[in-house]
Amino acid sequence: MMQLKLEHYNIKIGQHKVLLNIVDAKELGVNPGDRVRIRGHQSLSAIVDTTDDMVPPGTLGVFTEVYEHFEDWDKPVEVVPSFRSKSAAVIKKMLDKKPVVQDEIKMLVSDIVDENLSDVELSAFITASYIHGMTDDEVEWLTRAMIDTGDTIEFDTHPIMDKHSIGGVPGNKISLLIVPIVAANGLLIPKTSSRAITGAGGTADLMEVLSPVEFSSQEVKEITEKVGGALVWGGATNIAPADDKLIKIEYPLSIDPYYQMLASIMAKKGAIGADNVVMDIPVGPGTKVPTVQEGQKLARDLINLGHRLGMNVECAITYGSSPIGRRVGPSLEVKEAMKVLESMEGPNSLIEKSAALAGILLEMGGAAPRDQGKELALETLRSGKALEKMKQIIEAQGGDPNIKSDDIQTGQYTADIFASTDGYVMEFDNKWIIEIARLAGAPNDKGAGVAIHKKRGEQVKKGDPILTIYAEKEIKLDNALATAQRTNPIIVEGMLLRRIPGTYGFQ
Amino acid sequence: MMQLKLEHYNIKIGQHKVLLNIVDAKELGVNPGDRVRIRGHQSLSAIVDTTDDMVPPGTLGVFTEVYEHFEDWDKPVEVVPSFRSKSAAVIKKMLDKKPVVQDEIKMLVSDIVDENLSDVELSAFITASYIHGMTDDEVEWLTRAMIDTGDTIEFDTHPIMDKHSIGGVPGNKISLLIVPIVAANGLLIPKTSSRAITGAGGTADLMEVLSPVEFSSQEVKEITEKVGGALVWGGATNIAPADDKLIKIEYPLSIDPYYQMLASIMAKKGAIGADNVVMDIPVGPGTKVPTVQEGQKLARDLINLGHRLGMNVECAITYGSSPIGRRVGPSLEVKEAMKVLESMEGPNSLIEKSAALAGILLEMGGAAPRDQGKELALETLRSGKALEKMKQIIEAQGGDPNIKSDDIQTGQYTADIFASTDGYVMEFDNKWIIEIARLAGAPNDKGAGVAIHKKRGEQVKKGDPILTIYAEKEIKLDNALATAQRTNPIIVEGMLLRRIPGTYGFQ
Repeated sequence: MMQLKLEHYNIKIGQHKVLLNIVDAKELGVNPGDRVRIRGHQSLSAIVDTTDDMVPPGTLGVFTEVYEHFEDWDKPVEVVPSFRSKSAAVIKKMLDKKPVVQDEIKMLVSDIVDENLSDVELSAFITASYIHGMTDDEVEWLTRAMIDTGDTIEFDTHPIMDKHSIGGVPGNKISLLIVPIVAANGLLIPKTSSRAITGAGGTADLMEVLSPVEFSSQEVKEITEKVGGALVWGGATNIAPADDKLIKIEYPLSIDPYYQMLASIMAKKGAIGADNVVMDIPVGPGTKVPTVQEGQKLARDLINLGHRLGMNVECAITYGSSPIGRRVGPSLEVKEAMKVLESMEGPNSLIEKSAALAGILLEMGGAAPRDQGKELALETLRSGKALEKMKQIIEAQGGDPNIKSDDIQTGQYTADIFASTDGYVMEFDNKWIIEIARLAGAPNDKGAGVAIHKKRGEQVKKGDPILTIYAEKEIKLDNALATAQRTNPIIVEGMLLRRIPGTYGFQ
Repeated sequence: MMQLKLEHYNIKIGQHKVLLNIVDAKELGVNPGDRVRIRGHQSLSAIVDTTDDMVPPGTLGVFTEVYEHFEDWDKPVEVVPSFRSKSAAVIKKMLDKKPVVQDEIKMLVSDIVDENLSDVELSAFITASYIHGMTDDEVEWLTRAMIDTGDTIEFDTHPIMDKHSIGGVPGNKISLLIVPIVAANGLLIPKTSSRAITGAGGTADLMEVLSPVEFSSQEVKEITEKVGGALVWGGATNIAPADDKLIKIEYPLSIDPYYQMLASIMAKKGAIGADNVVMDIPVGPGTKVPTVQEGQKLARDLINLGHRLGMNVECAITYGSSPIGRRVGPSLEVKEAMKVLESMEGPNSLIEKSAALAGILLEMGGAAPRDQGKELALETLRSGKALEKMKQIIEAQGGDPNIKSDDIQTGQYTADIFASTDGYVMEFDNKWIIEIARLAGAPNDKGAGVAIHKKRGEQVKKGDPILTIYAEKEIKLDNALATAQRTNPIIVEGMLLRRIPGTYGFQ
């Protein structure tokens, strides 16, 4: 035990951490990474780091997460060595691929949400589950723990519908059509979405062009009960908050552990009380799911996990090798989607995919007989009911319901990329499109992005524009243009790639 | 690109890190964990974290590691997004168990030493190598990289001898005997040692009772050339500095990845130019190496790695289930070792083990014919030559060469633990002894520790003292005593534990 006076470092570092002078640490018998218990006005546990110069002996340096637990700063605090974190012991088990029980996963997720684990511990957990995978039980427990450590919404009316797209495909603006179609047919669909991390625009980034998207879970409930649907940013609610903590570790490692992805998706559905969920699984080179076989496994796993959690899940394996529609970037995509709502004018890939997935939800929710969901979805678009519903949602979220697709501003700086020869567009992949859109400023600059005039496999003539880059800032346009020109999609002359002489039989 | 003014957070956090306001981060298109390049007076790369309140837009918060690169603080700096760290890509490969090449491991270790990796990345690397293991090539490359990223010592005279003990056995003070025995026979043995992290005293903690132990590698060379041997703390040299960075990650995870342990041991030997190394591998329950089979594998791997690095390695598998000698804790152990040097008085386990291992080195170095090393070692002790050499080493390191074992002060507060019944000492393991010694203040309080009167398997009578606890502070004695009494070693009445009736043949 040791009496120390406090010194506050006014920095949030995402964990409960304290700094001890090495002399005090030795006296206490603790090493960096150990925990101490701090007895003061409240009692709490913190992770130790040591220093030989930042705090003098007799002083405890505390970061903001710890600081916030105290009221009286002039009083010294008692510091005692603490036992190893139980969650750290659970992580150690996972490293050794030993079985864990539900209570251990619950405790671990609570400690993640409460910022009681260090980056070292979190990263070991993520890495171990990436390498070892998880059992069905463990995934279910993880999902339940992620639900229980955040807000949940209890609707009085059921069924609750929901939809999720596995990421990786640019221009996948289908939620802007699916949500109003489903809601227009009397079903509740409180859709929480993400912002893009590595993409050109998540659904939340898109919807923000039309209305605010940051609401509490209580507000999401009210909006949904009022107009049948919502299109909000999940990050502003406190739904499944563990997910953001995990993503913050996964991102720098460039990994997305499969079983945590399952848990993360389904926790968000479970937390809003979803009964019926449709999953959009884009498949193909350059997506998160390269092959149909992997898509089928993912579908089975999502359906199985949904069943364990009491949700009906249907999955649609979709074509993911090219962008959906022909616009990428928030305002450009919203413009394209609104145009479809207003007039059914727009790319077939967008209308077809949206109607197919909305149709599945209409059938699952009992709004359409089996095999007639897609037609009802298309009819809801054609009749203008989907547009009407979208306006209600925009208004309920505080936006201007009278906005028209033509009103939506896109970046004022534009530049075209032209075909360098006659032929067919060959190499032209999702990642390239996303990179150009991001360099142009998407998703932060709403008006930035890319309009695609020619997709993979389409015929071009030399000098035809292949795409147009939009930016809000000239320097970003220059940046995107330079990269786009340097990495111009490959055009080949004619579809015949190489002739293999048929020597067999002539020898 | 963005112009930002600097704000300094005067905290070392072990990595090159900067804080961006979330608004600026979005504008730059970077997320937490991404890297930015800072152009100013010098150009450097740093890991991004984001905040919505700690730094305002337009300001770059920098921690001390980054701060130290700048001279002129009033000038704004240019910040641009940087590519993903190449070392992060190497770590990703390791997660996926893909082969890596030597240059990649070199770069990774350089980035570890230069604090260019985040805790998240380091932990993923450690976890992946813990789970997947490493190939022989990878271990060799890791070892070479650990050598090359630190100081090395080039001696003019050869052979250079060295010794290493795998940890876990309390009281393992044998280096205090082996080094002077070997040096007294004309061989150079520049022994770097560690301080205890979880133990009751590393060799460096022990030697510090007799002399300073913190020297640069140049000083280690000079001491060794002058008197033939040195007993110093490796942490004060800049030898294999990557090791400390790795330990800082491994420690909170309670793991010691096997192949990194190999690399860490051998890097320290390689860096001082060792030609002949003896390895002490204590085996038994409660040690790091539970079975003889595992000890043999470790021996083969160390010999193999030594061969790849041009070192002769011999291994001794030793009995590790009980403490070596009967004293645990810095001053107590030094007293015990000095007594042996002065008069050959002391526990057989200590004298036998030290002579056996020193003997192997004497044979390897050509100072004794095959099979006669141990006898020469014992003779070196008996003749007083080892004591004489130890005095020279103490003097060369700045200590008092005339110190006698009786002069060494041990903790003034003592308490005995008594046998609660007649019988034999049964459960009495290394971890228990270490815990009591640490609670009493070891290794930080040099005089704290434990004197063991009865070891496992020895006969006791009710009321016999089993051990004596020494402490420098009364409160620590009370602490250690309370725990020792609560967890008193189990005494059984008689050696017969349980009678299993021999029913076979009588039915």
